[in-house]
Amino acid sequence: MVEAPAAATHITPIRVYYEDTDAAGIVYYANYLNFAERARTEMMRDLADGLYARMLADGMAFVVRRCTVDYAGAAKLDDLVEVHSRVLNVGGASLSAEQTVWRDGERLVAMEVKLGCIGSDGRPARIPADLRAAIEKHA
Amino acid sequence: MVEAPAAATHITPIRVYYEDTDAAGIVYYANYLNFAERARTEMMRDLADGLYARMLADGMAFVVRRCTVDYAGAAKLDDLVEVHSRVLNVGGASLSAEQTVWRDGERLVAMEVKLGCIGSDGRPARIPADLRAAIEKHA
Amino acid sequence: MVEAPAAATHITPIRVYYEDTDAAGIVYYANYLNFAERARTEMMRDLADGLYARMLADGMAFVVRRCTVDYAGAAKLDDLVEVHSRVLNVGGASLSAEQTVWRDGERLVAMEVKLGCIGSDGRPARIPADLRAAIEKHA
Amino acid sequence: MVEAPAAATHITPIRVYYEDTDAAGIVYYANYLNFAERARTEMMRDLADGLYARMLADGMAFVVRRCTVDYAGAAKLDDLVEVHSRVLNVGGASLSAEQTVWRDGERLVAMEVKLGCIGSDGRPARIPADLRAAIEKHA
Repeated sequence: MVEAPAAATHITPIRVYYEDTDAAGIVYYANYLNFAERARTEMMRDLADGLYARMLADGMAFVVRRCTVDYAGAAKLDDLVEVHSRVLNVGGASLSAEQTVWRDGERLVAMEVKLGCIGSDGRPARIPADLRAAIEKHA
Repeated sequence: MVEAPAAATHITPIRVYYEDTDAAGIVYYANYLNFAERARTEMMRDLADGLYARMLADGMAFVVRRCTVDYAGAAKLDDLVEVHSRVLNVGGASLSAEQTVWRDGERLVAMEVKLGCIGSDGRPARIPADLRAAIEKHA
Repeated sequence: MVEAPAAATHITPIRVYYEDTDAAGIVYYANYLNFAERARTEMMRDLADGLYARMLADGMAFVVRRCTVDYAGAAKLDDLVEVHSRVLNVGGASLSAEQTVWRDGERLVAMEVKLGCIGSDGRPARIPADLRAAIEKHA
Repeated sequence: MVEAPAAATHITPIRVYYEDTDAAGIVYYANYLNFAERARTEMMRDLADGLYARMLADGMAFVVRRCTVDYAGAAKLDDLVEVHSRVLNVGGASLSAEQTVWRDGERLVAMEVKLGCIGSDGRPARIPADLRAAIEKHA
């Protein structure tokens, strides 16, 4: 099956509020990581809602192992930005994703994130097979 | 024993960083509650370090039931403010405190906070007797 | 004109993400003030979008002078809560509002907030007459 | 002049409070960027206090252009961590630094940050020569 790239990109719109900004008048650099986490959660919910909820209910979680963030532009108070998220790769116990933040067709921030799956004991754990399959369909 | 008021006031110095500010150029109003929580923790550590640590280790915690915040002035980036904390009253399962934020002798924010003690099950619980006694000595 | 109370209440749905929670597993107490600020902004946008945007463009802003927060329950990760906002009173240079946070019909948090209007110089300023009229219609 | 590596590393101790943690019981991944920003500010203050203050007073600022963050371990509530910061390179209008977060001799997080200098108009600007010289002495 051939799937168009657009189909694999999940989009989360986010409004910029005072809490997101800093004294420089722009979104504080760490807060784009908040936006990205929201967007990953929404992507999971959309890709595989019941499966992801079950994973969380089982005490498992995705934790960030590594992220790289490039800041090319800055969002401002009241901006409506979009986080575009795309799974790049899914392994047995890890996942990598590309996430970009856009405003009116301008790419402000680009991130690459590597996530690990952990169990209720906080140790690395395999991603549940059905969730992994659901994610792979969109990767 | 008569204790001078000053002795009962705990002081926590806090530096204002970018993360604390917003696009209005001042500390975002919710972030004074972060400052106040840091100051309450430091006060507990100073009043009764081992006892408070044990309470946390037992899965207990203080949670805020009510707070009233008056904003008279605003702290700015790079300001060094002080949070002055004073226990007003300590009951079997609750605690009230007055906390004020100062910059160079000017009172910027005044809070009154009521805390409840909860057990590891999240339900109201009595403050451990020895911790309560240590707090009362300073109230 | 008689207006039903429901018409005067503005509702903002908010999803709880990791960033909103703390080690106690619940939404950190200060973060409800973030939720409330988002909800006030959305209420202004809905009540009087162009007028509020103009006020901001003129360098004016609403700042919180006082807030009282009662915490009766706690939202958790992944909860979908609603902030119900209602203008109580609007004066020449100030505004008071009641804001409550609900989850599935349970009121978790109740706030009362008093806001002041400031000009581009940071000093108290009158709320623009047309914006004030638009707000009063809903108060 | 030969300078020992230790001399070039700036250390900022940071206590972990509730606000820093999330429902997973650990410091939320974005909040290490807050810690890093605090540490960079303290490093600047220590390296060249008056010069850095003057740069800010002139409306200039350092903004993050790129950061890479590796998460190897996680800090928990009440931990006392240290941020070790070291300038790697200083150019005409940019700066790169390595920052690591430690707890009891264990390296939890490693970051590499590239900063750009901007003027009061938000556009790239040269780092003031005297500040640059002060930074270079420690790089």
